[in-house]
Formats: sequence, C-alpha cells, structure tokens
Amino acid sequence: MNNPIKVALCGLGTVGSAVFRLINDKSELFKRRFGAEIKIVAVSARDKCKERDLCLNDVAWFDDAIEMAEVSDANVVVELVGGSEGVALEVCQTALSTGKDIVTANKALLAVHGFDLAKLADEGSRSIGYEAAVAGGIPVIKALREGLVCNEVQRLYGILNGTSNFILTEMRNKGLDFETVLKDAQMLGYAEADPEFDINGVDAGHKLALLTALAFETKPDFSSVSVEGISNISELDIRFADELGYRIKLLGIARRGPEGTQQSVRPCMIPKELPMANVDGVFNAIAFQGDDTGPVLLEGRGAGAGPTASAVIADLSDLARGLRLPTFGVPIKKLKLGNPALEDTAVGRFYVRLMVLDRPGVFAEVAAILREQDVSMEAILQRTRAPGAPVPVVMTTHEVNQLAIKKAIDQFSSLDTVLEEPRIIKIENLGL
Amino acid sequence: MNNPIKVALCGLGTVGSAVFRLINDKSELFKRRFGAEIKIVAVSARDKCKERDLCLNDVAWFDDAIEMAEVSDANVVVELVGGSEGVALEVCQTALSTGKDIVTANKALLAVHGFDLAKLADEGSRSIGYEAAVAGGIPVIKALREGLVCNEVQRLYGILNGTSNFILTEMRNKGLDFETVLKDAQMLGYAEADPEFDINGVDAGHKLALLTALAFETKPDFSSVSVEGISNISELDIRFADELGYRIKLLGIARRGPEGTQQSVRPCMIPKELPMANVDGVFNAIAFQGDDTGPVLLEGRGAGAGPTASAVIADLSDLARGLRLPTFGVPIKKLKLGNPALEDTAVGRFYVRLMVLDRPGVFAEVAAILREQDVSMEAILQRTRAPGAPVPVVMTTHEVNQLAIKKAIDQFSSLDTVLEEPRIIKIENLGL
Repeated sequence: MNNPIKVALCGLGTVGSAVFRLINDKSELFKRRFGAEIKIVAVSARDKCKERDLCLNDVAWFDDAIEMAEVSDANVVVELVGGSEGVALEVCQTALSTGKDIVTANKALLAVHGFDLAKLADEGSRSIGYEAAVAGGIPVIKALREGLVCNEVQRLYGILNGTSNFILTEMRNKGLDFETVLKDAQMLGYAEADPEFDINGVDAGHKLALLTALAFETKPDFSSVSVEGISNISELDIRFADELGYRIKLLGIARRGPEGTQQSVRPCMIPKELPMANVDGVFNAIAFQGDDTGPVLLEGRGAGAGPTASAVIADLSDLARGLRLPTFGVPIKKLKLGNPALEDTAVGRFYVRLMVLDRPGVFAEVAAILREQDVSMEAILQRTRAPGAPVPVVMTTHEVNQLAIKKAIDQFSSLDTVLEEPRIIKIENLGL
Repeated sequence: MNNPIKVALCGLGTVGSAVFRLINDKSELFKRRFGAEIKIVAVSARDKCKERDLCLNDVAWFDDAIEMAEVSDANVVVELVGGSEGVALEVCQTALSTGKDIVTANKALLAVHGFDLAKLADEGSRSIGYEAAVAGGIPVIKALREGLVCNEVQRLYGILNGTSNFILTEMRNKGLDFETVLKDAQMLGYAEADPEFDINGVDAGHKLALLTALAFETKPDFSSVSVEGISNISELDIRFADELGYRIKLLGIARRGPEGTQQSVRPCMIPKELPMANVDGVFNAIAFQGDDTGPVLLEGRGAGAGPTASAVIADLSDLARGLRLPTFGVPIKKLKLGNPALEDTAVGRFYVRLMVLDRPGVFAEVAAILREQDVSMEAILQRTRAPGAPVPVVMTTHEVNQLAIKKAIDQFSSLDTVLEEPRIIKIENLGL
C-alpha cells in the first residue's frame, strides 16, 4: 500500500462537491485500484455555512484558500475556484512553492499562466494535473502525453465547448435561432447565466492553447489563438450547410506548418460524414493526427460534475501511483517558445452568404468582384425569390487565399444591392 | 534523467522492425519526453540472415528467445512473437521470473494465460504492458486503467477487429459478397493469408476478454466469451439493414448484470446514427459507459506497424517514467474470479430473414410459429416477387426472449416453404 494522498480541496461548487463525495463514497475502490487512500484533510470555500449536504467534520476548514495552500499538511491542492487571476492563481503558486502538487480544472488559469506555473512545478519537482481542464471526462491529456507519447502530432482539432455545441445542435434540430436556443440552454443548465466565454470561443481557445502546448512542445500561447464565437451563426446558414452536405461546428484547430503553429477557434463547415460532424449536443471530441499512430478520436462529456470530478480523481490517482510528468510533456526549459503563424495568409475554401436585392445586374456585380479577386466558385445556391425582397445568395469557393476572400467580402459589403453584412464560414478539410 | 530502459526485443516481423526503427529514429524525442533513453540491447528472431534493413551490429543476437529473456541484461522484454502458447508464453514467463518487465502485443496469450502471468508479475513487482494488444494505436488500456480509474464501468463495447470491419464496410459500399471482399482484403494486405481468427471473431474475443477483465476487475475469461464471426453475413442482409436504418458491425460487448458478466462477439445491427455505426474500414473503436464520466468513445487504427509500435513505445515510456500498474487494474488477489452469465436467457430485439417460396399460405405458417413462441414483430419487409422463385421475408422483432426466437427459428427451418437456413442478427440497443 502506498502512502495516503492528502488533499486540500479549494472550492466546493458543483465540481468540488462532486469530488468530495466521490472520495468518500469510493474509498474502497480507490484503495484497491491506486494502492493508496485519498484523504481530504482541508477544505476552503467562499461560504462555510452554505447548505451542502457534505460532512465537513473531519476536515480542517480554511476561510482563506491561499493560507490553506500554504500551511495545511496536504500533499496536493485541488484548485476548483476558476478564473485566470486572483485566488486561483495565488493558490496554485503557493501550493507549488511550498512543495505540493496541484490538480486543477482551470483552463483559463493554465492557458494564461501555465508556463510560469509549470516552471514552479519543475523547480520543485511537483506536478500539475489538469485532465479536468480540457474536455471533462475524456482522458485527453493522458492520451496525448502518455498514450501518443512517441508521436509527432501534425494536427489536432476538436469540439471543445459543450455549451456552444449544444446550441448549434439545437438550432439545427429544431430550426430555431441563436437567441432562442441560448435561452433554452440557460434554462436547462447547459449554459451559464453569463455564457460569454462559452459562446464567444474563449473557453474553447483556453483548452486549445493547452492541447497545442502539449502536442507541439510549445509554451502555451492563448494570445495567439484566433478566436471567433457562434453568435453570428444563423439558422439559415445551418440549413444551407445541410443542403451542401456540411455541418457547422465550433472547432478548435491547431496545425504545425513550416511558417509556425496556427491556432484557431471558429465556426467551421465540415462534411457530414466526418465523425466530428456527428458529435452533437453537449458532447466534446478531439482528433489527433499522429505520425506513427495515425488518426485518433476521443469523444465524451466535456463538462458536468461527474465527468469533471472523474478527471480530477484520475489526476489524484496518478499522484498515488507516483506518476509526475512535465506539465506540457517535456521539461519547461525544452519547451519551444512558439512561433505563431499568421492565419490570414492561409489558403482555404469558404462558404459565403449574401443577402441581396433581387434585381437585374446583381449577379454581374458579384461575379465581377469574384473575378477581380481571383476567387473561383465551386457551387452557387439561390432558392427563394420574392420580388423586391432580400434573397440569400450562397456560394462555396474552391481553394482561395484568405486575404482575397476578405477583400471580396469588403467589396460585397459596399454594394447597394447587398443588404446585410456578408456571412463567411471556412470549409475545413480535415481527416478523422 | 532517469536510468536508460534496456530492451530485449523478441520478434522482428512487421511490428518488431517498426519498434526497432522507432527506438533508433526518435531517440531525441524519447529522451526529451521520457527523461530516459531507450536502448535495445538484445534481439531474437527466427532467422538472423533475413534481409531486414535494420542495423543489428550494436545488439546481442540470440537464436533462442527464451534464453534471451533469461540471460540478457535487459530490464524489459518486448514480446512480439504471437500465439497463445509455445515461445511467446515461455518468453514472458521467463522474463517475469527473472525480474524483467514485459511489453507485448499478444492478445491471445493474455486472454488465455493473462491471470497466471499477472500473478508472476505481482509476485516479482514487475508489470505487463499490453496497450499494443488491444486496438493498436488507440490508448484504450491507459484510458480505462488510468483515465477512467474512478469509474465503475457498466458496459463496454467495440469494433475490435479491423479486418472484419473492413470486409463488412466493403460489402456495404460495393455491394459485393463476403468471399469476394475477403480475397480483395487479402490482396490489399488487410487480411492475412489465414484470416480465420479475424473473421471468426476469435481475435476480437481475445481483446474483449482483456477489456472485460480490466473494466470489471475479473480474471480474464476468454472461454466464456460467446463468439460468432462474420462469414454468414450476406450482402442481402447488409442491404436490408440499411433499409431498416441499421448497420451491421462485428461488436464485442461486455455487460455487467445481476446474473454475472456477459461477454459476446457477434455481428449486430446498430442504428445508423450511433457513432459506432460510422466507424468504417480498418478502424477500431471502443465505447465505455462509466458511472461518473458517462459515455466515452475512442476511435483509431487498430492494427498496422505504426500504430502497434506506437503503443509498444507508450508502454516502454510508462516504464521509463516508473509507472508499473497491476495488469488488470487491481492486484491479482483482488480480481474476482468472474461469474459468466448465460447469454441465452437474455431478452433482445432481432432481425430475421427467411428465404421462402412465394406461395399462398406461407405467411400464415410463419405467423402461426411467431404466435406460438410469443414473438411480436416490429416490422416486416418483403420486396421482390418472382413467382415460384425464393423471396426474402425480413422481420424485426420487439423485445423477446432469446430462447423463444431460437425455437421459432428452428420451426421456420423445418417448414417446406423455407428454403435456406434462416438468418438471425441481434439488434443492439446501445448508447454512444
């Protein structure tokens, strides 16, 4: 039997309470499987008196989480406070500086301060477990850092935010617009009261930055993730995508190219037949392309108390089993600083939708702009016609320079006959 | 830097050669990521003089693999000989008995002798790495034993044999029969010259026995896996399945129920919308249902030199990092002996196809049998009609007792108007 793992638990929200309960309810299973006991020795949360249905008698209570990280006799601090600054950051810094391991579900913190925290961890030979920070119950960090350890990853992409995936799925299935579905999602508890980071792509961007760092051995670099959310996606675009054989998904994509590492989060069109296109609802999925192992896809629940707590426990189990790995796969001094590629120069295929006045000569104007920018079309759809009313004109392009298509869009916008801001969605050509 | 891992490599076939090459080609990457060097110190294979394009100058050659396992100064023996008995078994026994870890891709060996080998490993505090034995490049053992460690798995199922999945996919896509596609697969190298274990379900059964042991903490018990292959699947059934909204897949399924653990490998019909239904070609996939994490699906290449070698290296990396886990998740003395459930009593839904003479009264005979056995139908399909020629009659049932449907099938067989052996395929109702 290994020595018990003594945990200081910081945060007793949904996930923190689930971790507390799991550790108590499954102690026999843990002893059997880890060869060690997990004991919660200290707890800190905002309000001690809140009704929680947890028995906190046997644990030391700290009003001050940072004090707990420093003085408790825990050997690991589980940080479930959230946020990239403030208490969460100080708790982690303090824990690592005083010889404790940390386990956290905090992607924002690691995407922003991961390099400095990993440095602290390396210096003290401690580890940072963050399985719960990316894709909840899917063991994606473990798969990448250990299972695919011999692979040079060429590309990774994924659905990294369950809330936005749920919204896009509901818009498609029910033919509803973004605002209506968002309200439903909030009522169902699939979206926070303040859903900003979920729907604007920032949450997915945080997770992508961590996966990119791990896969490419680079310093995590959230600031160079190009981020676009889903609030501009209309139900009309989802229907046209369907007609053209695509699904619209909010994808985080990281590619390693000759010009550097390119990271983006944005709504993309992908062929319906791609497994990722059929990952619906609150599910997350990540696809890696390894040079030896080929494509690997992992799918599961990306959030929620059970899946997230399960990932926290997996990290604690690694500690019980004596496994401490470099945060981003290699020692901090071997991490490359990163070499972000400018995305605007990338070539790609695009979906473009214009709302035009159905008047003679409109098509000629559009065609002239396309010719001028050297953008060649693959397909054009124009369905409903109501004289005098705006009609959608939908085009998909062949491979074109991204700068060219942006110039074309600017020129479309300036036409009198184009009534709304043109919509443009990249068509991604991805393997499994 | 950790101590170097010294490897004795047993077998230099496709996978063995790939492992040899990877260890040489990626030594810098391994040093960076594992904090240790991997060195091949000894090699054994059937024929020393065979042209291999590998430089064997710096390694000790052994004609006798068992001698190598005993006397070489390796600390881990990589067994890539194959087969459940003979050299492979003796090599592993010898290595473990002389204080060496083993890493193997040999599912047959572990499905049959896994318990005894795990006992040897426990006694000597050594470990058995077998990531390469199940689903090749997909880190499924790691996901289950570590990533989902806190979960009680309720059910697992998967496409565990790439050859049979390739054959079923080609039959569907090209409308060809089993024999024709098998020959194509052999020419393409996707099926062995002797494909028996791949197409009769035994290979998938070996892998299922290992996953079951790990998921349910039971002694691996291949002998209680109910196994049926794909050679009876006709192109006609694949077409009818499609029409009814299903795909036919060779699935390994393990369930834990009140009566015990049920393990089966057989062709099943699953709804087209299920992610597993769209895992095509040589790909494998495994779905777990964890009590905390919910459903998790992993997909990737289940065979081939690159993916398999990648999994072998992942196991070596665990050793370099000091991670040694109980073979089946818990120490051998805590493994339950297993309590195999009799499958015949299970309730399920079924697809039944009869080839009947298109004569008045046939349907009445069929209906009478169904009524007698209390089998209630969900749908009946009868398409082509050619007077005097046999026509297919296809039925899907509601939930019925498996014994009842088998009795009905026996009675159908005895009818003069039923011309071929009736075909029956279980319709599986599975989550993600």
